[in-house]
Amino acid sequence: MQEYFATYVDRYATDGYGPARNLLEMIELAGQVKDLSVVDINYPFPGGEVSLDAVGKALKKQNLSVIGITPEIYTREFSRGAFTNPDKGVRRRANELINEAADVVRHFGAEYVKLWPGQDGWDYPFQADYKNLWNMSLDGIGELASQNPDLKFVVEYKPREPRNHMSFDSVSRTLLGIEKIGLPNVGILLDFGHSLYGCESPADPVGN
Amino acid sequence: MQEYFATYVDRYATDGYGPARNLLEMIELAGQVKDLSVVDINYPFPGGEVSLDAVGKALKKQNLSVIGITPEIYTREFSRGAFTNPDKGVRRRANELINEAADVVRHFGAEYVKLWPGQDGWDYPFQADYKNLWNMSLDGIGELASQNPDLKFVVEYKPREPRNHMSFDSVSRTLLGIEKIGLPNVGILLDFGHSLYGCESPADPVGN
Amino acid sequence: MQEYFATYVDRYATDGYGPARNLLEMIELAGQVKDLSVVDINYPFPGGEVSLDAVGKALKKQNLSVIGITPEIYTREFSRGAFTNPDKGVRRRANELINEAADVVRHFGAEYVKLWPGQDGWDYPFQADYKNLWNMSLDGIGELASQNPDLKFVVEYKPREPRNHMSFDSVSRTLLGIEKIGLPNVGILLDFGHSLYGCESPADPVGN
Amino acid sequence: MQEYFATYVDRYATDGYGPARNLLEMIELAGQVKDLSVVDINYPFPGGEVSLDAVGKALKKQNLSVIGITPEIYTREFSRGAFTNPDKGVRRRANELINEAADVVRHFGAEYVKLWPGQDGWDYPFQADYKNLWNMSLDGIGELASQNPDLKFVVEYKPREPRNHMSFDSVSRTLLGIEKIGLPNVGILLDFGHSLYGCESPADPVGN
Repeated sequence: MQEYFATYVDRYATDGYGPARNLLEMIELAGQVKDLSVVDINYPFPGGEVSLDAVGKALKKQNLSVIGITPEIYTREFSRGAFTNPDKGVRRRANELINEAADVVRHFGAEYVKLWPGQDGWDYPFQADYKNLWNMSLDGIGELASQNPDLKFVVEYKPREPRNHMSFDSVSRTLLGIEKIGLPNVGILLDFGHSLYGCESPADPVGN
Repeated sequence: MQEYFATYVDRYATDGYGPARNLLEMIELAGQVKDLSVVDINYPFPGGEVSLDAVGKALKKQNLSVIGITPEIYTREFSRGAFTNPDKGVRRRANELINEAADVVRHFGAEYVKLWPGQDGWDYPFQADYKNLWNMSLDGIGELASQNPDLKFVVEYKPREPRNHMSFDSVSRTLLGIEKIGLPNVGILLDFGHSLYGCESPADPVGN
Repeated sequence: MQEYFATYVDRYATDGYGPARNLLEMIELAGQVKDLSVVDINYPFPGGEVSLDAVGKALKKQNLSVIGITPEIYTREFSRGAFTNPDKGVRRRANELINEAADVVRHFGAEYVKLWPGQDGWDYPFQADYKNLWNMSLDGIGELASQNPDLKFVVEYKPREPRNHMSFDSVSRTLLGIEKIGLPNVGILLDFGHSLYGCESPADPVGN
Repeated sequence: MQEYFATYVDRYATDGYGPARNLLEMIELAGQVKDLSVVDINYPFPGGEVSLDAVGKALKKQNLSVIGITPEIYTREFSRGAFTNPDKGVRRRANELINEAADVVRHFGAEYVKLWPGQDGWDYPFQADYKNLWNMSLDGIGELASQNPDLKFVVEYKPREPRNHMSFDSVSRTLLGIEKIGLPNVGILLDFGHSLYGCESPADPVGN
């Protein structure tokens, strides 16, 4: 949802491609989409704080329910990584933010916490200790899955952007990581565009 | 200059990759770069209004001079195009903004007004009347060159981004356009990265 | 036609992806394509020598006519270029071969000689004197157009492959070259795939 | 070795970029490369049959030894796949050819049989039953590894070309496959260029 109803900003139109909207306005817009029944909401809520109660009412009014919550672990604070940030305090903050998002998933009876560690990766060859980075990613997600055995965590992989190379870059790599974590409540969310972006034939990973 | 000393923002780190800075702070940062002697400044000045006088003093303090001014004709107001905007009023506003930038060029004795019409183009096949778009681009630049015969206007081409296809996409296309405009004070600014981005061998366009 | 009915070979299946065929067999195959009325034939004829007379009969039998002839100026002999080959003798041989192809165009009453100088270009930055290469390309084509004022020569541009960079890489570059040649019987053949390959929106060059 | 000393052919210079050479001539050329000590040889030997004895003598003369043998399972016969060919007879022929190559590995005391199943994959979405294709690939390689427990088989992955999508497309996918095969004598040969081609940072897969 966040990609369709939020204000889009880039380094050209730094003032955005439309007026700023808060979550309640986005939900109202989402409600106008025929056949739409579920939404995936960023956390912290985009466009400024609103109460869980207000969100719940807005959703009900539009006949929408929450399928997942996506903690924003790729903003300025996490620009050097969430699970792999060299600063232990930032890694702790990422864990806390995602645990808060897990509570929102419980509140709405949603299906998953979606993890998109977009800043966890590298930009240049030899910039990072790849193996260490990979292990930190797996440790961070494993810790969350252990802390919340009642919830599902899904990893949304993407080859690159904003980082030139994301640690979770492809379906195969993500599967290898999940096998290594070895917990039953970690899975994959396949973004169709990200799969095409990585030159996959999306029906291929789905079948495997 | 704007690319190195301004705050960078994208749709991920929507709060930017660093603290906001105004032009005077950017000039101070630029002054710390060894061997840097000239800067190209965006207009309106990034980071909030400052007087021409204050900018001049800040530059002098850092032993920097202005080589060119780049009017921001690609922000939200111009997201449907500057020279090719379907709204005549917006096209007029682009012309005015660039004429203001021309005055800043005169004020600093700079060499050129740089035009980067990043939103003038299209995203999908058949989205636009290509020929009409092209003619509007040439008319818009020709009008500016006629209004300011004492100044040079340089077009910075780029294949795409933010638009999937920019009207001024390559050195050859831009040369064809400049020939058609037929005025002596319109030229090209070759951005090395943009040239590589378009699969040119940059020394090839330079030699022609 | 050559692309669809000839035997395709690459560096993997070096023995080809099907049995070798001569031109008469290809024409017979072409005749089976519903609604196909014209063919573009490589010269020398692919698959071994056959007489013009035999080709004419085969075409008539299939209700096909020749729209153009494509001299093969990109085989081993011309692997360092046709118009831009450093060996003057090879450049002369290219001119002779294309003039022979021009005679075949006259014989069949076809519309054009198609020039695809696929080996005229470069692979690495600074490998070539770009300007010199460009001028040799224009001289070579200009000479042909002058020698055959009764015929049309059309240049089929392509961004790259086999060369990393072909001299005639885009519609704009080719138009600039044609303007410089300044003869009325030189034009462009737009290959839809080559245009997409170069990130053009094909309807854009067509309209210009 | 086959890439540097064999005659290169493509669909443009269909007569090749140089004179044809047989294996003995290639070995002589390889011997002129300073610091080269090992070669990887295609099987059947390129350029026409020569005896194992003659090859051994030619290698000895140049102080070269064989590091691996690459059976050509991507020529016309295998253009619809080697391990995944819909024709059971062709799959059998691939197995036989690779077993012959295994004997050559034993003859020269080389380190591995290299498998590059370049035609095993697909070109279009939904062209193939991806899961079935994948299982056939794993079965085919597993059978070979079982038949030759004394030898190592290494898979050289590549994202695409000649197929638009190769089954063994990346290091992660190949690792997943090898885990599933579950035999100790199956590994990966990392081609540096193929890894870059797939947007990997080659030191990353190596470290994992």
